[in-house]
Amino acid sequence: MVPAVPTALSTDLYEITMAAGYYVERNTGLATFELSVRALPAQRGFLVAAGIEQALEFLEGLRFTAEDIAYLRSVPALRVVPAPFFDEYLPGLRFTGEVWAVAEGTPIFAAEPLLSVTAPLPEAQLVETALLSQVLFQTAIASKAFRVVEAAQGRPVIEFGARRAHGIEAAALAARAAFIGGCAATSDVEAGLRFGIPVSGTMAHSWVMAYADELEAFRRFADLYGRDAVLLLDTYDTIEAAQRAVRAGLHPAAVRLDSGNAGMLSRAVRRILDAGGLTSTRIVVSGDLDEYRIAALVETGAPVDAFGVGTALSTSSDAPALGGIYKLVEIERAGTFVPTMKLSQGKRTYPGRKQVWRIGRGGRAERDVLGVFHEPAPESGVPLLTCVMRNGTRQIPRTALTTVREDCRRAVEQLPPEVRRLHDPATYDVAVSAALAALATHVAQQLKGTGTATNP
Amino acid sequence: MVPAVPTALSTDLYEITMAAGYYVERNTGLATFELSVRALPAQRGFLVAAGIEQALEFLEGLRFTAEDIAYLRSVPALRVVPAPFFDEYLPGLRFTGEVWAVAEGTPIFAAEPLLSVTAPLPEAQLVETALLSQVLFQTAIASKAFRVVEAAQGRPVIEFGARRAHGIEAAALAARAAFIGGCAATSDVEAGLRFGIPVSGTMAHSWVMAYADELEAFRRFADLYGRDAVLLLDTYDTIEAAQRAVRAGLHPAAVRLDSGNAGMLSRAVRRILDAGGLTSTRIVVSGDLDEYRIAALVETGAPVDAFGVGTALSTSSDAPALGGIYKLVEIERAGTFVPTMKLSQGKRTYPGRKQVWRIGRGGRAERDVLGVFHEPAPESGVPLLTCVMRNGTRQIPRTALTTVREDCRRAVEQLPPEVRRLHDPATYDVAVSAALAALATHVAQQLKGTGTATNP
Repeated sequence: MVPAVPTALSTDLYEITMAAGYYVERNTGLATFELSVRALPAQRGFLVAAGIEQALEFLEGLRFTAEDIAYLRSVPALRVVPAPFFDEYLPGLRFTGEVWAVAEGTPIFAAEPLLSVTAPLPEAQLVETALLSQVLFQTAIASKAFRVVEAAQGRPVIEFGARRAHGIEAAALAARAAFIGGCAATSDVEAGLRFGIPVSGTMAHSWVMAYADELEAFRRFADLYGRDAVLLLDTYDTIEAAQRAVRAGLHPAAVRLDSGNAGMLSRAVRRILDAGGLTSTRIVVSGDLDEYRIAALVETGAPVDAFGVGTALSTSSDAPALGGIYKLVEIERAGTFVPTMKLSQGKRTYPGRKQVWRIGRGGRAERDVLGVFHEPAPESGVPLLTCVMRNGTRQIPRTALTTVREDCRRAVEQLPPEVRRLHDPATYDVAVSAALAALATHVAQQLKGTGTATNP
Repeated sequence: MVPAVPTALSTDLYEITMAAGYYVERNTGLATFELSVRALPAQRGFLVAAGIEQALEFLEGLRFTAEDIAYLRSVPALRVVPAPFFDEYLPGLRFTGEVWAVAEGTPIFAAEPLLSVTAPLPEAQLVETALLSQVLFQTAIASKAFRVVEAAQGRPVIEFGARRAHGIEAAALAARAAFIGGCAATSDVEAGLRFGIPVSGTMAHSWVMAYADELEAFRRFADLYGRDAVLLLDTYDTIEAAQRAVRAGLHPAAVRLDSGNAGMLSRAVRRILDAGGLTSTRIVVSGDLDEYRIAALVETGAPVDAFGVGTALSTSSDAPALGGIYKLVEIERAGTFVPTMKLSQGKRTYPGRKQVWRIGRGGRAERDVLGVFHEPAPESGVPLLTCVMRNGTRQIPRTALTTVREDCRRAVEQLPPEVRRLHDPATYDVAVSAALAALATHVAQQLKGTGTATNP
């Protein structure tokens, strides 16, 4: 297994264009960028932060190789960039900044920074694209996974989506995020090796079709895998397959149903298994499942013991991308830190470096407060952002994913139940502190004072 | 730049479980699997095949390293697998099979094989997951890209979606597929280096915010990039920014609008630029665009010269996954090839190894015929599947992506116009040959004859 290596060129060209400009202009003081999600997708009452670990790995490994630099020199848009940028700046570039982030698995809401970077402006700019893609993707998947797992009400959910993921690297990252969101295991073997996630699998239709008849296929599989065998019943006829396995005296650990009416078939198969004494044989259902289908099966009492979920988990198919942004909020000018903000229509941001506090009482989260980084914490407020990297060196150990998953569940369970609903969740209260509101008004006025006006 | 290396563990555990079973059972004769898409997503009249190149690279590079094998030995579900599978079979495993595939950029339809693999059963099984994820992902993106580019009616579309892609490897692959589908360039620098795609970029809001006022930011950028500079106008106020750039005597190559009403703002900005003599300065529009929004802008005559499209292109956001399958269609038993099929409810497949012929007349594709691999070609039928790999060695050179893109456009333009519509496209006619229909009936009867019946 050779893991994918993030590269410094995993970035939009304009990050390089701008970094070159900042370098040439000596605009290389400290700047703070914050990564947040502008709005939650439909049907999401909260998001589960994930991918922070991969973001930190990217920053730690940031290097421009000689090959990278030779390529950049060949890019027409960069031909006017003075040689020292390529000869002196890029070869020695390392990420030297400070990063604050929420813990992976933390439920977060729109406009809340998940991660902030304070670094010399060109460094902080160059890493934008990679940080966004790593954090937004895994956050989308972990958020979806939590919903799917919640719908299963305690029955294990196994992530089966590698084949529908956006390439094989996305498959492994999706497995990781789905595990954080509560999945019990993944089918993706690479994710097992890289992230220590339990791997799980059954048999495919091809196994059944590879033998002259279905019973022979079942017997051969059971001969090798014994009581661990999971038999796939729906290649030809689900009911007949179940009867056949029972009559043959097989004792599979489980059977899997992958097509047809899962509610009806699971009941019929349960009766056949029980009548044959296979009361401990579990029923796994898969095939185009999502949180709504699972909830319907669970609510109608279908005798399903575990769910295998593919596309919905590996692509978050109803919300495959989050509207995430990485915005400059503060910049050093002549030795002082100046808060900045966008006034763009519909895309206005809050200025200055920020902190998020979660206000709780008796193990219940009541609301969050988005405030100025250095203002005093509100009463009963727990800060969500902590320092995870300083001078380019990580400050926190890697957390075991099982711990992240447990912390995630505990934190989400503290949210108001109406925010956690699968259907039409309520909006959680994220307040803006008085200090931040005042700062936003002040900065907006100053910006207008420079000769700009608000958009019509 | 260190490219992501596909690994043999990029697979579902059940592929390993089954491969071990086939090995133990000596069920290692040749088998043919076909990769196809079960149904087209909503609003898609056709798909554009892509990712075949990465599929072939995966097959050529297939190796289990010592680390991979050590990990597999540790997986609980594999503990019953006899040692020779790990000691003798996996270390020497290479892909030795034959692959037929459609050319990248070929428009294809539901149920048509994009790729078929004929190899010893365990080999053909092991590669299922990776082949599906590589081909389905890029096919989804190329298909979406063609729609977006078509909507732009000749105006260049630049793919800007790296930050919303499913990780940094997905960003590069999406850029590749979007280029095949007709995009002019990508913002993703890694895709530029790896795939030779032109890279393009402008400036971000952070550049504007990094200077004390907007005009200073514009001037500094223009100082460095001169007539190549693209100025982003919407950080504070789009109209004011345009006026300011004109008054300052700047001559940018283009301006970009990223928020607000693009139709109205592009007209207003065009008037300001023209009045200032900047008639050659182009207008680029970006910000949550897709084929429908672009079509609306083009149809209403908005003076937009180029479009930057992100999320819609890098995730195919309205159809982020294709319902693709990789099905066993033929297997060697006692020296003869036996066609196989699934009868699963709603997931029935056609048996036997197949070919697809496109029937055309006067440069117009009229319909496709799905037939038995060795049957005579129908009149005026051009076979879509050709041999691309034999004995594990590729038989075709890499095709330049610009050629793939041109071939794609030409092939799609031969489809009936009603199939190419953006809204509610008509269904293209894919006929099943008489020989294939007869084979399907025969095999289905035989399978029922083994004691199974159709599902209720």
